[in-house]
Amino acid sequence: MSPSIKEIEYDFPSRDQEHFTIAVDIGGSLAKVVYSPRGSGKLRFKTVETEKIDKFVQLLHRIIAKHNGGSYTDTRIVATGGGAFKFQQLLDSEFSLLGQPIVQFDEMACLIKGLDFFIHEIDNEIFTYNDSEGFDTVPKNNDSSVYPYMLVNIGSGVSILKVSQPNDFVRVGGSSLGGGTLWGLLSLITGAKTYDQMLEWAQAGDNTNVDMLVGDIYGTDYNKIGLKSSSIASSFGKVFQDRRKIDKKKPYVEEALNGTSTSESDSEDSLDQAQEMRRKSTDVTHDFNNEDICKSLLYAVSNNIGQIAYLQANIHNVQNIYFGGSYIRGHLTTMNTLSYAINFWSQGSKKAFFLKHEGYLGAMGALLHTTSGNQLI
Amino acid sequence: MSPSIKEIEYDFPSRDQEHFTIAVDIGGSLAKVVYSPRGSGKLRFKTVETEKIDKFVQLLHRIIAKHNGGSYTDTRIVATGGGAFKFQQLLDSEFSLLGQPIVQFDEMACLIKGLDFFIHEIDNEIFTYNDSEGFDTVPKNNDSSVYPYMLVNIGSGVSILKVSQPNDFVRVGGSSLGGGTLWGLLSLITGAKTYDQMLEWAQAGDNTNVDMLVGDIYGTDYNKIGLKSSSIASSFGKVFQDRRKIDKKKPYVEEALNGTSTSESDSEDSLDQAQEMRRKSTDVTHDFNNEDICKSLLYAVSNNIGQIAYLQANIHNVQNIYFGGSYIRGHLTTMNTLSYAINFWSQGSKKAFFLKHEGYLGAMGALLHTTSGNQLI
Repeated sequence: MSPSIKEIEYDFPSRDQEHFTIAVDIGGSLAKVVYSPRGSGKLRFKTVETEKIDKFVQLLHRIIAKHNGGSYTDTRIVATGGGAFKFQQLLDSEFSLLGQPIVQFDEMACLIKGLDFFIHEIDNEIFTYNDSEGFDTVPKNNDSSVYPYMLVNIGSGVSILKVSQPNDFVRVGGSSLGGGTLWGLLSLITGAKTYDQMLEWAQAGDNTNVDMLVGDIYGTDYNKIGLKSSSIASSFGKVFQDRRKIDKKKPYVEEALNGTSTSESDSEDSLDQAQEMRRKSTDVTHDFNNEDICKSLLYAVSNNIGQIAYLQANIHNVQNIYFGGSYIRGHLTTMNTLSYAINFWSQGSKKAFFLKHEGYLGAMGALLHTTSGNQLI
Repeated sequence: MSPSIKEIEYDFPSRDQEHFTIAVDIGGSLAKVVYSPRGSGKLRFKTVETEKIDKFVQLLHRIIAKHNGGSYTDTRIVATGGGAFKFQQLLDSEFSLLGQPIVQFDEMACLIKGLDFFIHEIDNEIFTYNDSEGFDTVPKNNDSSVYPYMLVNIGSGVSILKVSQPNDFVRVGGSSLGGGTLWGLLSLITGAKTYDQMLEWAQAGDNTNVDMLVGDIYGTDYNKIGLKSSSIASSFGKVFQDRRKIDKKKPYVEEALNGTSTSESDSEDSLDQAQEMRRKSTDVTHDFNNEDICKSLLYAVSNNIGQIAYLQANIHNVQNIYFGGSYIRGHLTTMNTLSYAINFWSQGSKKAFFLKHEGYLGAMGALLHTTSGNQLI
């Protein structure tokens, strides 16, 4: 979900000497582009918000101007992601001077092609991370020991793919609770206007002010089923009840109760109202701060994706789980939460991996496609 | 999550003639009580918010006064749920006149005991529901064909249990994304002060105003992986980008971009700002309404629970999935979403069941315990 236009250099021997190739991956929230400036032996990665598609188009024009001398006839654009189809007409009309039409490739195939490339051909790309052990770089893997593996691609939503062999993959599932959900809800609640603001808040927050822990319910651990006092029983579980305490007006809870109560409970309600009001006034009436809210929802979404990934990996008997997509953005808390979830649920039998260029799997895969035929959705 | 004190009558032959037994299940958000007035052959169910534990205690005193002539020595209180432990001292001191100490039972064991009772002994309790086929009542089941089954208990958080035989169960998983999450987030966003308000809004809402659909990304279906244009790709995925459009000030998106952009991208950013501003001013700048937000989050949480339930049922090779807990509250959209998720993910091979007394499994199970020994957590 990076809002920035990034530029990263990378060793990349050009595979198509005839054409200057630009690969784009237009997702629900972000449009990504990967290209290798002629003769540079490097890869460059950039991102623009999909809603600013005009800006993205201008970026592509400038890339052609700067890196291919403005020559359109020997420029090739390959495209993937939903936006490659949604914006097909716009792209075709903007780049009608290309020597060949823009080719669309299937998103899932591109993700896997890109990931396979990063795993097998690029050193220092794949790594593991958790807060206690820190980073550990995984060397590039030239044999087939990595198969089968799973890709959990977290963009606006989540796609989960099982890869059995090179070019042999299936999308086994997904979730609508992804990056778009986290940022959408947080922007509604906190009013934050940038991704970085929300991540910064999440880093500083304390989720236990809004989450209901096992200890909040039990007063202690729940040993019989292995739940520690500090485990999150209900994300945001403290909010609804605390909000009612905060309100200083005639308690609406009473109104709600009376609205649906039976005659017996009416008489029960009529008791102790004065005592109830006294008790309320002595309650700690804290509000909720943005930091705690951001931390809690980041935990909730990341934990949830981690759990679903584990369950799918269990069903499909896969040990290695790669997390890609622009949701992660190298954010330590996010990666630690995903790693922790995989380790916790699998009791250490499965492992989470991350990528330095996590958001560019699809664009990278499109760049590597050398066929010219359209692969329609 | 019912805020109301409900009273429902039920056929129930008393099992302990010596004592008047009151069973309580004190959860993270709600405290439930089940009892059978002496000689009535009926069961009564009531709920109070756990935060109003004093009110709950008063309710128990009044039940003893009204239904056992105020006699404490032959009244028996059995308790389960985390609050049975958290509030143990309070309960012991409030009910020190009882002829025997309050007994605590394990929450999971009570849930299963209660569910088994409802399945096997009560007619018209279990039912199926989806919007197209409506309600279908399941007769009580006196044989063992129901095993193995799964219970997905949705309270503040979610617990998932596999039941292989009577009294042979294991908690296989859970989720922190439960009722507390839905209501906590919705109360933060919408300011709603009652459950009923939020459910009413959810009923009236249109989630497609806030959710990003496959069609919003692709402009069409994504047939290759079987995703329809109308499928939810990202819950709340439209919010973050639309919020940026709404803001009329100097676009903060630009600030964010400039803050982390490279020198090349700076020059790219400097172009087209005037054009960009013109485009912004012609965007449809709609805000988000509470109805749509409530519907979207109800879908998101219910879908997510349904998917996790399916994955667990798949791993544990279970066909019948019972949904219990106070989250459901007989709400049609919730039940339809859970049913749909199970049917969709299992391709019709697994089935969702609901209960009329969904929130009272734990209290019911505690009432049925006839041992007097403490079963500690």
